Amino acid sequence: MTPPFSAGGGITPPQGAIAVIFISGRTAADAEGYGAAADAMAEAAARQDGYLGVESARGADGLGITVSWWRDEAAALAWRQNPEHTRIREQGRALWYDWYRTVITTVERAYDWQRSEPAG
Amino acid sequence: MTPPFSAGGGITPPQGAIAVIFISGRTAADAEGYGAAADAMAEAAARQDGYLGVESARGADGLGITVSWWRDEAAALAWRQNPEHTRIREQGRALWYDWYRTVITTVERAYDWQRSEPAG
Repeated sequence: MTPPFSAGGGITPPQGAIAVIFISGRTAADAEGYGAAADAMAEAAARQDGYLGVESARGADGLGITVSWWRDEAAALAWRQNPEHTRIREQGRALWYDWYRTVITTVERAYDWQRSEPAG
Repeated sequence: MTPPFSAGGGITPPQGAIAVIFISGRTAADAEGYGAAADAMAEAAARQDGYLGVESARGADGLGITVSWWRDEAAALAWRQNPEHTRIREQGRALWYDWYRTVITTVERAYDWQRSEPAG
């Protein structure tokens, strides 16, 4: 297999990239507005210089984890300061989140695995 | 607010800690066995020296993200080599996952936010 291959459609982040881990608890408020804002955020991030990709999951208990990958610290910081990101972040604090945690990390290494034969 | 406070019941990882980001796509197979193994994994991890905490979310589309926090590289590596972890990883490849990606990262900094008044 020729790396980087793209298990699950995501990217395999290179060493030295920045992973921004966003962990959050949702309020029950405004599911529709939240969904629209999440889509708008994803589009704004993808237009940003140094954006490498994003993965997101939210369980039925309301806890969500989003990891966005960035080329370097400068790219991650520019995204933090992006005006649309800032605007949506303020709405998130007003409406959508009970709590959140943002953790900035540096990628050391990554391993991919993908099924080559049916499960069982 | 006195840091580190514990938004959502999780931990705020300190600078230099290791975050192991595990992103996976589930098969449709063996939901019951998977649930039991996930519980057993969480218990085994929590007994491991250098374990700081774990957060996990899986959405309705089958994509899941788990982040486990470790004191240092040695602790994360020891968990990787833990015999129960190894056994469950092999079952995961046989049964539960279509693909997964493991990304080892180093924590640079973390920010917490928690609601102080009702949403709206």
